[in-house]
Amino acid sequence: MANKKSYLKFYLALILVLSQYLAYAQSKSSAIFSEKPIFPKGQRAPEKNFTGTVWVYSLIQADSAFNIPVANVTFEPGARSHWHTHGGGQALIAIDGIGYYQEKGKPVRILRKGDSVKCPPNTPHWHGASPDVGFTQIAVTPNAASGRVTWLQPVSDQEYKLKEK
Amino acid sequence: MANKKSYLKFYLALILVLSQYLAYAQSKSSAIFSEKPIFPKGQRAPEKNFTGTVWVYSLIQADSAFNIPVANVTFEPGARSHWHTHGGGQALIAIDGIGYYQEKGKPVRILRKGDSVKCPPNTPHWHGASPDVGFTQIAVTPNAASGRVTWLQPVSDQEYKLKEK
Repeated sequence: MANKKSYLKFYLALILVLSQYLAYAQSKSSAIFSEKPIFPKGQRAPEKNFTGTVWVYSLIQADSAFNIPVANVTFEPGARSHWHTHGGGQALIAIDGIGYYQEKGKPVRILRKGDSVKCPPNTPHWHGASPDVGFTQIAVTPNAASGRVTWLQPVSDQEYKLKEK
Repeated sequence: MANKKSYLKFYLALILVLSQYLAYAQSKSSAIFSEKPIFPKGQRAPEKNFTGTVWVYSLIQADSAFNIPVANVTFEPGARSHWHTHGGGQALIAIDGIGYYQEKGKPVRILRKGDSVKCPPNTPHWHGASPDVGFTQIAVTPNAASGRVTWLQPVSDQEYKLKEK
């Protein structure tokens, strides 16, 4: 009888420890990148303007009455935009993962779920994912008379790697 | 020995069924409203313009260079805006829960996580949560020369309840 009980206790304790560990592991991973994203990934972003794999899903298409496109952009780990400017500026809202944002001549900002950035008009900048964790952002882009986006040179591996220090 | 084994099997089966049920229950509830929202709730929205409890968290504050405020709005179950118009229109992006959106004279649209709405300029409309599940949206509002928002009458219980049918 004593044997039977201890046998049972051992199995129950084992199951308890395992289930606690699984719950902990799940909460850790979901704190970094959600398994169930809010929006579909959408289409691949043009390779000529990005390094690595980037996806764009249009949320609001601009028209004559509402001239401000809104899109969800997903950067896979290590992926980033080229340097670029927006004639009317752009707002970025971080909704998942870990991202980088840098304006020319300024330090890199780390963006996490819930952070926002207002990029001023005609300011060279780039944004993307951290090397190990992807990044998802909502981008709000006024279609200014001066143009929506002007693409510049790629962010080199050296420029990107420097940000790690 | 046979007794001991069947005793064990019964407990293991019970634990298995229970853990499966708990995992199912958790996935069901998280599919409706997230326990960990992306943004803080922020400040209570002015009671004079809303029915029920509504929270507003500013993501992007408008300035002279970027004249388009962006905010996260959380409606508790049953809460909704009054009827109103936007001089420059407004884009709504549903990120959690179940919401309602209605333009004057049109049927109600149900908004779920991932849905978007483009509300045209100067169009009377209201939006809010379903009666039983809250609703979280990102609102993108151009500060048009014709004014950001003009508030109209409340959405009556009768108007709101009719949408349930």
